Amino acid sequence: MRAVVESLEESRIREVANEGLGREGVLKFWFGESDEVTPAFIREAAIASLQAGETFYAHNLGLPELRHAIAGYTHGLHPQQSTDQWFDRIAVTSGGVNGLMLASQALVEAGDEVVVVTPAWPNLVAQPQIMGATVKTVPLKVVAQGAHAGAWTLDMDALIAAITPATRLLIVNAPNNPTGWTLTRDEQAAILAHCRRTGTWILADEVYERLYFAGDSSHGAAPSFLDVAVPEDRLIVAHSFSKSFLMTGWRLGWLVLPKPLTHAVGKLIEFNTSCAPVFTQRAAVVAMERGQDVTPALVAHLRRCRDTLVPLLQAVPGVTLAEPRGGMYAFFHLAGQDDCLDTAKRLVREAGLGLAPGSAFGPEAAGWLRWCFASRDPQRLEEGVQRLARWLARA
Amino acid sequence: MRAVVESLEESRIREVANEGLGREGVLKFWFGESDEVTPAFIREAAIASLQAGETFYAHNLGLPELRHAIAGYTHGLHPQQSTDQWFDRIAVTSGGVNGLMLASQALVEAGDEVVVVTPAWPNLVAQPQIMGATVKTVPLKVVAQGAHAGAWTLDMDALIAAITPATRLLIVNAPNNPTGWTLTRDEQAAILAHCRRTGTWILADEVYERLYFAGDSSHGAAPSFLDVAVPEDRLIVAHSFSKSFLMTGWRLGWLVLPKPLTHAVGKLIEFNTSCAPVFTQRAAVVAMERGQDVTPALVAHLRRCRDTLVPLLQAVPGVTLAEPRGGMYAFFHLAGQDDCLDTAKRLVREAGLGLAPGSAFGPEAAGWLRWCFASRDPQRLEEGVQRLARWLARA
Repeated sequence: MRAVVESLEESRIREVANEGLGREGVLKFWFGESDEVTPAFIREAAIASLQAGETFYAHNLGLPELRHAIAGYTHGLHPQQSTDQWFDRIAVTSGGVNGLMLASQALVEAGDEVVVVTPAWPNLVAQPQIMGATVKTVPLKVVAQGAHAGAWTLDMDALIAAITPATRLLIVNAPNNPTGWTLTRDEQAAILAHCRRTGTWILADEVYERLYFAGDSSHGAAPSFLDVAVPEDRLIVAHSFSKSFLMTGWRLGWLVLPKPLTHAVGKLIEFNTSCAPVFTQRAAVVAMERGQDVTPALVAHLRRCRDTLVPLLQAVPGVTLAEPRGGMYAFFHLAGQDDCLDTAKRLVREAGLGLAPGSAFGPEAAGWLRWCFASRDPQRLEEGVQRLARWLARA
Repeated sequence: MRAVVESLEESRIREVANEGLGREGVLKFWFGESDEVTPAFIREAAIASLQAGETFYAHNLGLPELRHAIAGYTHGLHPQQSTDQWFDRIAVTSGGVNGLMLASQALVEAGDEVVVVTPAWPNLVAQPQIMGATVKTVPLKVVAQGAHAGAWTLDMDALIAAITPATRLLIVNAPNNPTGWTLTRDEQAAILAHCRRTGTWILADEVYERLYFAGDSSHGAAPSFLDVAVPEDRLIVAHSFSKSFLMTGWRLGWLVLPKPLTHAVGKLIEFNTSCAPVFTQRAAVVAMERGQDVTPALVAHLRRCRDTLVPLLQAVPGVTLAEPRGGMYAFFHLAGQDDCLDTAKRLVREAGLGLAPGSAFGPEAAGWLRWCFASRDPQRLEEGVQRLARWLARA
């Protein structure tokens, strides 16, 4: 086996989840998914397709109907290109993670330098490493005091300094998992302008685009690199049906590509998974067509979850966190618990509370914990905070 | 974009299929899939899972129930290890192609040398190239005359000479797509013995294992490297639900790994697709449990298809082919048609017959055509041969 594969860090979140195996009554907030089942009308589209016998190979780039639906959705958020223009830039992938991996395969040569803004979902660092690249991380900074204490912010000077003509690719996830940090439009423009100068590609993981609570955009979504870029820019944006449509287990996502790359990414899809199942794509078409029946209610619910959880957590002694602007995570610092992997394991065993350790997302987040607040029943969040507070009082 | 990705050859099969877009009445034998829908009882298991709301993330390595079912299936064909021992060596993948790609990611470093036996499914050459490897092909040889004229055979001396201590990985697909060639047990043992000496990994694509007509094994399946290897050998075997269970569009396969690699491949799955959907895995469990209701009848039907098609084709002037021992393809040489990509396109346009060009599988197969005989209605095969014969008579 390759040394780089051997050394890839195993998911620390899974390590914590393993502590919970066989334990009754653990409140699980460790994974990045809602506990809500995919809406019935979406599942029914897949069922109808299976009943109709759609069990054959499909186009590498996705069903034309689905690409068209995604293109229309993209046009709705980003009207600077028509649905037909977006169509030629869409590739359906087997999950958001698969899209991100395809982008690394398309762009990253062994020995290339890749910059990743962290804390981040560990997959963003692992993928270019699998392709043989050297990864340089640029950590976000924590606001230590004041009204925004516990918020994570971008040190733009540090990021600009890290991206040089030797940098093949910048990978950035905003709204960010785990911190809830988002990029502003001005920051996106500044990063893009710099990357144009250095010839660096941008891979923007925008899967949380719709889960945005700041209310400072006309369509409700977070700022996107698509709105500051021109079609010719070296930019790939990764999306997923998982978060905004409650479809984690379906493994469906899409990439928005510069048009000249779409064909090549289709070839890579052939060599990676060939295609996504037709019956899951039929469900995704319906999710797109009836997205207004899903996403706005979901975002409103997540906002209620956030507004339930965050003040309760802030009131717990030793906890520092800022209200997240997007995503579905409360990311908080717990004073005196620097070994957060150990803390997370103890919380499972001793408090029946399942959280993800911050160190899973980068060394700068040691001492932090991630709490996914996408809970159908907000009461579970309250019960979780009580468990945390009781455990801290005992500790 | 990376030069290697740009230069990956686009599927010539798709190029031919594109000739058929919008044309009515083309008899399509170009893709490697049956025209039979997945059996209803398998689809119903997925439907039940969707109705039960199984729409969440799953284990990287696959549902334990499915891994157990695959392990039991593997034990049935290869009793030298127990079901529990095989269990620890099974990883569920998002299609056979995905398993093969994961194997390349696990083993192949940029600059490594990989040997591939050709003609072969083009993906086998492309995958290590995507990882930055140098691919050396070892062509099978065609029997020119006699009872086996048109059969492809292995030049063992050439293969042994090609595999040196510098060879990181040997990739071999047998029963072979497109030629129908299969490895004998003795050949497998000789290849393995040599690869042990050179320290070379073997990646065996055995997805056609069950589609074997030679009748010279006790369980009906083709010889497998698993039967000549010990658990510690550097051997990965790739399998798929697509061919033996009529599940092409489901994108489900599995790898049989040396136990120490299973955990690492689980990490790679996390970074590539995270997992296969639970509801497709539920269908696969049922396919495994009730495989006796599917595969034997399918193999008997494919044998009838082969026995219908091959003699008819052999009677066409200018056609040379040998009866395939395994797989679901008739691979034949057509005299005077060296540019088989052009021939295949003309057959679509001028004869309404859709075949795959041999050159898609390697330059040594220029002048050949692949005919997938997995047709629910063997009458379609007869009609296809008539179209070919009429077209040749006109040409």
